[in-house]
Amino acid sequence: MPKIVDHNARRRLIVKSVWALIGRRGLAAVTMRELAAEAGFANGGLAPYFRDKDEILLAAFQYACDATECRLEPAIAESRGLAALRGLCHELMPLDDTRLLEARVVIAFCDRAVYDPRMSAAYETTMDRWRTLMHNCLAQARTLGEVTTEASDVHIVETLFAVVSGFQVNAVLTPQATTATRQLEVLESLLVSYA
Amino acid sequence: MPKIVDHNARRRLIVKSVWALIGRRGLAAVTMRELAAEAGFANGGLAPYFRDKDEILLAAFQYACDATECRLEPAIAESRGLAALRGLCHELMPLDDTRLLEARVVIAFCDRAVYDPRMSAAYETTMDRWRTLMHNCLAQARTLGEVTTEASDVHIVETLFAVVSGFQVNAVLTPQATTATRQLEVLESLLVSYA
Repeated sequence: MPKIVDHNARRRLIVKSVWALIGRRGLAAVTMRELAAEAGFANGGLAPYFRDKDEILLAAFQYACDATECRLEPAIAESRGLAALRGLCHELMPLDDTRLLEARVVIAFCDRAVYDPRMSAAYETTMDRWRTLMHNCLAQARTLGEVTTEASDVHIVETLFAVVSGFQVNAVLTPQATTATRQLEVLESLLVSYA
Repeated sequence: MPKIVDHNARRRLIVKSVWALIGRRGLAAVTMRELAAEAGFANGGLAPYFRDKDEILLAAFQYACDATECRLEPAIAESRGLAALRGLCHELMPLDDTRLLEARVVIAFCDRAVYDPRMSAAYETTMDRWRTLMHNCLAQARTLGEVTTEASDVHIVETLFAVVSGFQVNAVLTPQATTATRQLEVLESLLVSYA
């Protein structure tokens, strides 16, 4: 019987092993040969799994999103309303080295997504999902009486989403101004203003 | 006498003529040959001015910043305090097609700046300058009694900067959620909250 290979699992394993390399040096500066070597493959060995670097970037973006969502679930499940919204935002903010590495991959992905419909669709789908999660937490916070502002939920979500997206860029590129402490303070002031 | 060529002026002219092409298709997808053709040069004709695409990207980023600052100056000079701060933020927000094109170039630049010290230094210098302008407007708004919040100026600037940076990404990649109208509403709520 031929060996059954789970190609999706193999693809995830490859992305996992090349992830740090992508974050450290940027996909543009890395060759397919180097990526293969990092994943323990011979030159050309990645071809059955990834046709080109764009496919690796798409997989790396999805890997970052999966990692984020694995953290989002408990952050939301273990709390309610405003606390859940806070936890959600924290997981989307680049507050530690892991999330800063994720932010680097997201920046690289955004650049390609501007011109590639498949990538921009993947980006939009994920952002829609996260916006919806924010809306759900916010609705719960209103029911609990934790949020009473007249500002609409769409307005609040767009504000928080802009802040979190801006931190992704600024914490990577102007780290001295955009420290983790300052990010947390900015978020907290916004959440307090919605009480 | 040999003809005196202003190479800086020539470089600016080239960037100006290839600017729309970069914004439309992305620098990664465009060859040096296409850029040369767009600028009216023979193949290889850009070499005396730009060694590679990275140099063109750096010049394109600086071109976007110069265009922004040309708009910033009157926006600030013609008003004071909170109105000047509002005008400044508006000019940094991707509210029309020109500024959306600038945002695309900035996203491409950010991606490269993550891994290139020369590019990240250029980015940081510009962002520092814009943060300083925000601080100046804010100090004036405090003197005029327009801003009385206990939140520190650093805190306010970091909030506005995150929002404006986030819009740069979101207006390009999730345009249906991040409309110009919504951007303006989000900014206005923040400014009102500092009164």
